[in-house]
Amino acid sequence: MSNGHYSVNRGVEALIDRMRQDASQLRIGLGEGAEGEKLVDAGASVLGSIEAGRRLAEICLGGLADVTLDAASSVSKFPFGVTVRTSSPVLACLASQYAGWQLTSDAGAKPYFSMGSGPARALARRETLFEDLGYRDESDTAALVLETASPPPADLVRRICQDCGVEPVNLTILYAPTQSLAGMVQIVARVVEVALHKAHELGFELANIVEGIGTAPLPPPHPDFITAMGRTNDAVIYGGRVCLHVTGPASEAERLAQNLPSSQCKDYGRPFAEIFRQYKGDFYQIDPSLFSPSQVAVVALETGEIFHSGAINDSLIDASFG
Amino acid sequence: MSNGHYSVNRGVEALIDRMRQDASQLRIGLGEGAEGEKLVDAGASVLGSIEAGRRLAEICLGGLADVTLDAASSVSKFPFGVTVRTSSPVLACLASQYAGWQLTSDAGAKPYFSMGSGPARALARRETLFEDLGYRDESDTAALVLETASPPPADLVRRICQDCGVEPVNLTILYAPTQSLAGMVQIVARVVEVALHKAHELGFELANIVEGIGTAPLPPPHPDFITAMGRTNDAVIYGGRVCLHVTGPASEAERLAQNLPSSQCKDYGRPFAEIFRQYKGDFYQIDPSLFSPSQVAVVALETGEIFHSGAINDSLIDASFG
Amino acid sequence: MSNGHYSVNRGVEALIDRMRQDASQLRIGLGEGAEGEKLVDAGASVLGSIEAGRRLAEICLGGLADVTLDAASSVSKFPFGVTVRTSSPVLACLASQYAGWQLTSDAGAKPYFSMGSGPARALARRETLFEDLGYRDESDTAALVLETASPPPADLVRRICQDCGVEPVNLTILYAPTQSLAGMVQIVARVVEVALHKAHELGFELANIVEGIGTAPLPPPHPDFITAMGRTNDAVIYGGRVCLHVTGPASEAERLAQNLPSSQCKDYGRPFAEIFRQYKGDFYQIDPSLFSPSQVAVVALETGEIFHSGAINDSLIDASFG
Repeated sequence: MSNGHYSVNRGVEALIDRMRQDASQLRIGLGEGAEGEKLVDAGASVLGSIEAGRRLAEICLGGLADVTLDAASSVSKFPFGVTVRTSSPVLACLASQYAGWQLTSDAGAKPYFSMGSGPARALARRETLFEDLGYRDESDTAALVLETASPPPADLVRRICQDCGVEPVNLTILYAPTQSLAGMVQIVARVVEVALHKAHELGFELANIVEGIGTAPLPPPHPDFITAMGRTNDAVIYGGRVCLHVTGPASEAERLAQNLPSSQCKDYGRPFAEIFRQYKGDFYQIDPSLFSPSQVAVVALETGEIFHSGAINDSLIDASFG
Repeated sequence: MSNGHYSVNRGVEALIDRMRQDASQLRIGLGEGAEGEKLVDAGASVLGSIEAGRRLAEICLGGLADVTLDAASSVSKFPFGVTVRTSSPVLACLASQYAGWQLTSDAGAKPYFSMGSGPARALARRETLFEDLGYRDESDTAALVLETASPPPADLVRRICQDCGVEPVNLTILYAPTQSLAGMVQIVARVVEVALHKAHELGFELANIVEGIGTAPLPPPHPDFITAMGRTNDAVIYGGRVCLHVTGPASEAERLAQNLPSSQCKDYGRPFAEIFRQYKGDFYQIDPSLFSPSQVAVVALETGEIFHSGAINDSLIDASFG
Repeated sequence: MSNGHYSVNRGVEALIDRMRQDASQLRIGLGEGAEGEKLVDAGASVLGSIEAGRRLAEICLGGLADVTLDAASSVSKFPFGVTVRTSSPVLACLASQYAGWQLTSDAGAKPYFSMGSGPARALARRETLFEDLGYRDESDTAALVLETASPPPADLVRRICQDCGVEPVNLTILYAPTQSLAGMVQIVARVVEVALHKAHELGFELANIVEGIGTAPLPPPHPDFITAMGRTNDAVIYGGRVCLHVTGPASEAERLAQNLPSSQCKDYGRPFAEIFRQYKGDFYQIDPSLFSPSQVAVVALETGEIFHSGAINDSLIDASFG
């Protein structure tokens, strides 16, 4: 990867500093954990904000993407949306943003579980995905983003620091639950990431994805976890639009475009929360190909062709968002 | 208010500095008043600019909102618009931006009248509104924004400084008349503020409004005061779209959504200038409930419900803008 | 021109520094020429990026315009677009961005030809256009932007430096071919510039154009030069929307609006590459009035009138972009 010497962890230090400075306006909570790790609560014991979520998303993307709130959603009842753009999509979305690091602890009174996301993953490299990415960050500081209501217990923090090779005092953990304002924005800002992750599942050569831009309508948060999760997923699955620029054979770009939209999945066509409940809350029964944008364009730089596929599904956005 | 220790006046110092540095490109005039107060003329004896208006709006909002010009207006003939977003809507829009401070002087040759707007209001706190806001700024510097063609006379400047508790040399007065490029942008950027002000009139608990995002088409300025004022109002009343996130009872959110759009007003349906002339230019005869966005969504964070109301009125925008 | 003392060359120094710092993420190449001039390859021997093109465009506009990528294109199949806004349109677009400086050399093995663009033009002032602009930059540094695959040979660099009055070590040449990601973005970001250039051709008083905002859909790049050039032109000619604010007589504003859109040209109605091939690649046979946005609004500040003309041509965008 040509971006090998950009550090996603050092790249977000200034963003984290600014977030801490603006804590009061962002309605976020700053704290310190038992090991000295820095905690940024963006929506658990605090209300948080849309702006906190926007910044959380940029941190989660390793400082390599612009995340904006705009009035450009093409879903008429929900004109406001989240747009993400990066010229380093693989590094930003897969080496940093993707929530792929399984973090568990049984040391506390009740078991702790969370999927780690953000730049710290590229230091720890505990996922097989990193073998395909060929990126290893080097940094004295680490930033970890969690879609959760509580920070990890001390034993887990120690293991995270060990895996990342950083001192606890140099680890920042930013967290916000799915139901919060910040959590919602941060998840919808994964509209390009889900496209990249599915491209990887489809066997597309990741190094060939060189540009990613995507947009999705901003859903209303919901206090119920499943409904909140359903809405953020529906924003992407039924309202997300993504354009990827790829190198390599145009035939591969065409195949990617055809298979990328959510409509290619058998579970397509119902609000996500309904699908989730049908499978009794067992994520692993849901066809993973559902997690992708509704409308896709893939540009094959080799031949200059553009391959379109899928479409926005307004009525399902209406059904989901209310 | 959790934002109690953010100072809207200190928060805009850097924005004012940058505006002064870029005075030539912004086509604004820098001056000094008789008392030593700093004057920024953004459209009276100078042409000013759209960018000057955009910055004026951000200053008026206490440095707590993003104001952008974009191509996202959904009014087809007028694709360019102004979008405002703040995670501190009450502080930004009501404690700072709202033009609620009555400034008068009879000392000069002819009487001076203007409605004061911007951060300085939160130092002076001369309006009963501040009792409901519970916010008091503390700052050595003050920034006052006026929708007018001339700065206040010396006696009024002295009273303003006294009310704000600042030295005249530390007061910056930024002004632009309704008819100017900057004035027009600065007024349309009130699309969220008018929603908040009407919410207050409707008895909605202000502390419960935690997010505000809004957009409205950019009207062409007009040299005639009434026509210019009419267009800026029509941009909001017939072309404005706002989304508010609120805490508290969902029933209150629903009531707010139902009553918030301009279409709930009996005067709705004609260009503002026409209504204004019908009442012979007597503002106080116009039903204040007219001053609100055309399309509204209120998200009740308590229940996750979203309440929609109102719609954009393309044909009235056409009739008003020409 | 009131902006006389703003230096477009000094104004972009910080933008160039930042581009150099982010070279790795932008996939651009940094080098040095035979005379010590600084070279920034944004798409010739490197892949480059959309973000590099966006920054290249802001540099080309003399640091006086905002260039953004957004999801606001109104062409449904191509939702992502480029938006340009400047409150100094004549200085930004004509004194800096316009590719009007003919640069040729016969000293090398094969002749070199390129049209110079960007701030350096305002130092060299080798074009008659500058007589009408009345702007002369003064700066120790110069920034030159070229839509080409190779930087100029040493003899030409020496002449460029002589014309600009700068030392070679203080000249930065940024280049990207038409077919590249950065080249494409940089060209589409000329949507306001082509409107200004045509206004000049139509005899409109340039000093009267005081605001420019425009947007156009982002085309897919193509490896073939003619197809790539065709798409970037089609993005503007069939998908570009521009709004200009002008001073001076409203009758002149109306005349400008009527004549400005591309649809006023006899060659309008076919993809640009087809027109180009019909004239056997001889640019000078193509009616120059074709080079303008598809949809135009001109605001006459004198009377407050707005004059609309032209319309987006979705089907031609589809035919061109594929």
